Amino acid sequence: MKRYRSRQVWNFEMETPVSRGSDDVILGLDGGAAATVCVCISAAMPSSGHLAHTLPVLARSVAGCSNHNSVGETTARETIEMVMAEVLLKAGSNRSAVRAVCLALAGVNHPSDQQRILDWLRNIFPIHVKLFVENDAVAALASGTMGKLHGCVLIAGTGTIAYGFTEDGREARAAGAGPILGDWGSGYGIAAKALTAVMRAHDGRGPQTLLTYEILSMLRLSSPDELIGWTYADPSWTRIASLLPAVVSSAEAGDEVANRILHDSVLELTASVRAVVQRLELCGEDGKDSFPLVMVGGVLEANDGWDIGKEVIDSITKIYPGAHPVRPTVEPAVGAALLAWNHVSSELVSDYDM
Amino acid sequence: MKRYRSRQVWNFEMETPVSRGSDDVILGLDGGAAATVCVCISAAMPSSGHLAHTLPVLARSVAGCSNHNSVGETTARETIEMVMAEVLLKAGSNRSAVRAVCLALAGVNHPSDQQRILDWLRNIFPIHVKLFVENDAVAALASGTMGKLHGCVLIAGTGTIAYGFTEDGREARAAGAGPILGDWGSGYGIAAKALTAVMRAHDGRGPQTLLTYEILSMLRLSSPDELIGWTYADPSWTRIASLLPAVVSSAEAGDEVANRILHDSVLELTASVRAVVQRLELCGEDGKDSFPLVMVGGVLEANDGWDIGKEVIDSITKIYPGAHPVRPTVEPAVGAALLAWNHVSSELVSDYDM
Repeated sequence: MKRYRSRQVWNFEMETPVSRGSDDVILGLDGGAAATVCVCISAAMPSSGHLAHTLPVLARSVAGCSNHNSVGETTARETIEMVMAEVLLKAGSNRSAVRAVCLALAGVNHPSDQQRILDWLRNIFPIHVKLFVENDAVAALASGTMGKLHGCVLIAGTGTIAYGFTEDGREARAAGAGPILGDWGSGYGIAAKALTAVMRAHDGRGPQTLLTYEILSMLRLSSPDELIGWTYADPSWTRIASLLPAVVSSAEAGDEVANRILHDSVLELTASVRAVVQRLELCGEDGKDSFPLVMVGGVLEANDGWDIGKEVIDSITKIYPGAHPVRPTVEPAVGAALLAWNHVSSELVSDYDM
Repeated sequence: MKRYRSRQVWNFEMETPVSRGSDDVILGLDGGAAATVCVCISAAMPSSGHLAHTLPVLARSVAGCSNHNSVGETTARETIEMVMAEVLLKAGSNRSAVRAVCLALAGVNHPSDQQRILDWLRNIFPIHVKLFVENDAVAALASGTMGKLHGCVLIAGTGTIAYGFTEDGREARAAGAGPILGDWGSGYGIAAKALTAVMRAHDGRGPQTLLTYEILSMLRLSSPDELIGWTYADPSWTRIASLLPAVVSSAEAGDEVANRILHDSVLELTASVRAVVQRLELCGEDGKDSFPLVMVGGVLEANDGWDIGKEVIDSITKIYPGAHPVRPTVEPAVGAALLAWNHVSSELVSDYDM
C-alpha cells in the first residue's frame, strides 16, 4: 500500500469529495492486448429488459496495454490504477462511491494471477467494495449477453481466445496463450504467417505471393530483407497484428498464399470454439441446444470482401446448429461493469429474501 | 568515438605494451543467439595443408548474446568490444598487433547492418587493420571448409539459417529471419511447436501427448496453464530452445505429436538448404556436382536416438547426391579468423605478385 500512497493519481479526491450514498457507481475495466478501457456506470440501473438502450454509462477512459505478460506487472498496475482514477474524476465521483469493480484482463490465466491482482486491488478500495478479476474474455462474453454468463465468446483481435460458461457455472477456455504458444487464428498469428510467407518467397523456400507487394507498400520498405529489422525493432504484438489489412486485401485479389492463411485462421478459430463447446456440452446431448456465440474483435468484424467472422460463423453453425451468433452492441468494458452489477444486484435480492 | 573512449576495457594496453611486428594476430568472433566467442590466432600461420591439426589459437574468450535484434545495439556492441579486449589480454597481445578482425554476427541481414557495424568497429581499430563483418553463418561455413567460401552451411541451434557461396563469389541464404518470421526448423521453432502442442492437448484442440509430461517435468511445473507465465516471464529465444531435449525424448518414446514436430523440422531444414543450392546451382547443371554441406548447431548434433542431423543429411543427399556432409572440427569463431586470414594472406600474395 505504501508504494501506491506515494502516487498522485488519487489526489483529486481531496479536492472534490463526494458523499457516499445514492450516487453509487460500478467500474468495469477491459484490459486487452492493445488498450485498456474503463467505464463508470451507475449502480442504480433500470430493469434489465431495457438495459441495452438505456445504459447509464457515466464516464469512459482509455489507456495503453495492461497485459502483465506483455508490458510487465508494474506498468500494467500503474495503467489500471490511473485509468480507474481518471474515469472516476470524469464521472464527478470518487472511490467512496464505488460499490463494485470488475477488472477483465488479458493475461489472467491462472487462479494465482487472479489472487495476486485481487490482493493489489484491495489496497486501492476499502473492504466493502466488491472486487472481481476475470480474463478479458469473460467481459467480452458478458457484453454480448448483457451480463449473463452463459454461452461461448470468441475473441480474435491482436490475440485470440474462446471462453465459455454453462448456466450452472462451469467454465472452459481454449487458445488465449499468446503468440509463442500458438494462437494462430489471431491478428498477430495471421500477420506473422504472412510475414513468414514473404520471407519464404524471397529466399526461394515458398511460392511468390502478392503479400510481398502489399506488406512492403504498407510499411514503405523496399526489400523483404528490411522486414527483419522492422520486425525486431519493436516486436509488439499489436504492431505485427496491424498488418492484417494487407493479408485481407491480398486474399481478396485472389492471392493463393493469403487465402490459405485466412482459411487456416478460420480452421484455428473454429477449433477453439469447438473445444470449449464440447467440453461444456453447451450444445446439449443431441448437439442441437441453443447457446449464444458472442463474436468480438477486429479479425471477426463484418467485411464486404473476405469476411473471416462470417466464415467462422458458417463453419461453427454447420457443426452446432443451435449456436446463436451475437455481435455485441456494447463494448467489453461495459460487459465487465454489467458482470459486477449482476453480482451486486443478486446480493441485494438475497438480502431482501432473508 | 567519444563514448567508447570513456570505457575502461582497453586500459590494460597501457600497462602491457606490445611492440608491433612479428607477433601479429588476427581476431575471429562468432556472435550467435546464445553466446559470443572470440579467438585470437597468430597471423603467421602454417601452410593450409596442415591447418586443421596445427591451428595456432593463442586465446579464446566467451561472453553473452551479441545479436542486436535480440539484446539491442548498445548491449551487443559492449559485449563485442569487451570480449575482443579480453581475448587480446589473455593472448598477451593488444590492438597494435592486430592485423585483421572478422566479426561473424547473427542479426547481420542487410548491407546497412554490415556498414553500421563496420563504422563502429573502425573507431576501435586503426585504419591499417582489415575489418570484415559477416553473418555468423559465413563463419560457420568457413569452419567446415578451413576458410574457403564454397558450398552450403546449415546452422540449426537456437535459430536456423542456410547460407551458401559459389567459388566465383555469389552468395545466397534462406531462413535466418528469427522466430517471428518463421524459422520453424530451429531449436526455438521446435520447442515453440511443442509448447503449442501441450496447450492444444490441454484445452481440447489437439491430441494428448507425452510432451505435456516431459516439458512440465523438465520445468517443474504442475499444470500447462503455468506454461503461459513461464513462457512470457522471459521469452528469450535460447530459454525456449532449451526445451528441445524434451521433444527428442518424447519422440524417441514413440509420441506421435513429437515425432510429427521433428519430421516437420527436417522438412523445414531441408527446404532451406534446397533453396540455397538451387539458387546458386551448387549441384551443377546435371544436379550431381560435389559441394560441401557444413552442418552446425545443437539441433544437428549426432544423437544415438532421434538424429535430426542424420535425417536432414539423408533427405538432402537424396536430392543432391553430390552434397558432401561436413561436421566441422573447429568452432565458428575459428572459421571467422580463418576467413580474415585468407583475405590477408591473399593480399600478401598479390603484394608479392606486383
